[in-house]
Amino acid sequence: MSKWFTEDWTNNVKFSIKIKEHLYSSRSKYQKIDFYDSYEFGRFFTLDDYLMVTEKDEFIYHEMMIHVPLSVNPLIKNVLVIGGGDGGSVRELTRYPSVEKIDMVEIDEEVVKMCQKLLPLTANKLTDKRVNLYFEDGSKFVKGTEEKYDLIVVDSTDPIGPGEGLFTTEFYQNCYNILTENGILVNQHESPYFDDTKYEMKRAHKKLKNIFEFATVYQAFIPSYASGHWLFGFASKGLHPIKDVKEDVQTKFKIKTKYYNLEVHKAAFALPNYVKQELENA
Amino acid sequence: MSKWFTEDWTNNVKFSIKIKEHLYSSRSKYQKIDFYDSYEFGRFFTLDDYLMVTEKDEFIYHEMMIHVPLSVNPLIKNVLVIGGGDGGSVRELTRYPSVEKIDMVEIDEEVVKMCQKLLPLTANKLTDKRVNLYFEDGSKFVKGTEEKYDLIVVDSTDPIGPGEGLFTTEFYQNCYNILTENGILVNQHESPYFDDTKYEMKRAHKKLKNIFEFATVYQAFIPSYASGHWLFGFASKGLHPIKDVKEDVQTKFKIKTKYYNLEVHKAAFALPNYVKQELENA
Repeated sequence: MSKWFTEDWTNNVKFSIKIKEHLYSSRSKYQKIDFYDSYEFGRFFTLDDYLMVTEKDEFIYHEMMIHVPLSVNPLIKNVLVIGGGDGGSVRELTRYPSVEKIDMVEIDEEVVKMCQKLLPLTANKLTDKRVNLYFEDGSKFVKGTEEKYDLIVVDSTDPIGPGEGLFTTEFYQNCYNILTENGILVNQHESPYFDDTKYEMKRAHKKLKNIFEFATVYQAFIPSYASGHWLFGFASKGLHPIKDVKEDVQTKFKIKTKYYNLEVHKAAFALPNYVKQELENA
Repeated sequence: MSKWFTEDWTNNVKFSIKIKEHLYSSRSKYQKIDFYDSYEFGRFFTLDDYLMVTEKDEFIYHEMMIHVPLSVNPLIKNVLVIGGGDGGSVRELTRYPSVEKIDMVEIDEEVVKMCQKLLPLTANKLTDKRVNLYFEDGSKFVKGTEEKYDLIVVDSTDPIGPGEGLFTTEFYQNCYNILTENGILVNQHESPYFDDTKYEMKRAHKKLKNIFEFATVYQAFIPSYASGHWLFGFASKGLHPIKDVKEDVQTKFKIKTKYYNLEVHKAAFALPNYVKQELENA
């Protein structure tokens, strides 16, 4: 009998992936963790039964999360990653020789350990010399640190469970405070399509635009996420994601990408009318 | 017990919609036709159990199919729609007072009749005076007609069953022959993400670029279609979808859109690297 992993995209919409093998299941201090191997998406893992990362399309999420801010400010040296236990965001960051230091703050050590074991595709650069791993609550870290960062990457789960504190006004304000003058924050910003994620998209955008000089969202086609229309937040102390984009950053460092390119970068900020209206009314 | 409509996106991926009511089911001369009402997507219909159009997101597909070519050539007067039995493409076309004549060729009269009855949201402009309905095979129509068209809209199903003839070299060549000097063809062009649709995307692109002076694809976020990353083909006798775009067409005619705008138009042609590579190797 074939086995399927099913995610409820809403109460009335389901997405199901045929499973080759259920590789691992446990309950950490923070959440339920499962790793699977599948026919269509390769290996993937879930937290509290929500799909996080698949081998088939993780490149889309991680490239768009990292290369967008790095093209806007190639002088980024000091980076803070909050969440992102799979290591994919760190992997893309390590491709820039210009990045000097990456602090990654992930609340759940078991996620990192298991990704290193079962998902080397994303986790294989967590041992880079520039990377410092902190297993603690990201919302506390940004409150207490005396470091300053050029870029903060909030690579969080949805705002339920352990990820909830990474969507609060206090958290965004603390991020703002520890960013340098040209600082940029990018975050996982939910989806505009189904009601639940749309609600969270609006809440996050409202908070970010009240704190940062500039805040918008950009989008990518991520088929394994609910609706396939997924958003990232881009907030800065002034840098503009299109006007300030540099044309040759990836070429200079010979970084080859499977999804990202400069046209895609600019296009990602062109929002459909219905999304613009929801954000204006946020 | 709750009922669900499930579509196999691949053999190993399923998409399921919770059904309020199964409104209609029959087998026409050409295919199985079903209409449903659902909680998340409103009403929708399927042909041979493949989802065609939902009330929730049909605007994305139809706006992108029609407003893109009309912005590139606002002088379009004579239009041929092939397929599109739901009437959504015709509805968007009738919003342009400059469009003088719309010939719609749909093989299956029952699809049109049932959409007029159960899906007025898309079908309500099929009675517009400029619209002529032909219930016949589109691939035969383009071979036999002596009309010339400024725009051909190939609003087809997937290339299996009745839609198969709308993906052949002969069909595209006949379309080319009946287009005017500034002619444009747009078509439903599958998706780059899963293997089956990617294969069809490549086949269609290869044929179109061998016949037309210019051929590319553009994309939209359509959550009810497999992967949510859906493509349209844009082929022309020379007009370029971005260089030739006019800035004020929808404003002039006071056409309000929920998805389409000029930034989205341009962005839709910015393809991810992996899609570009597949098309280059087509």
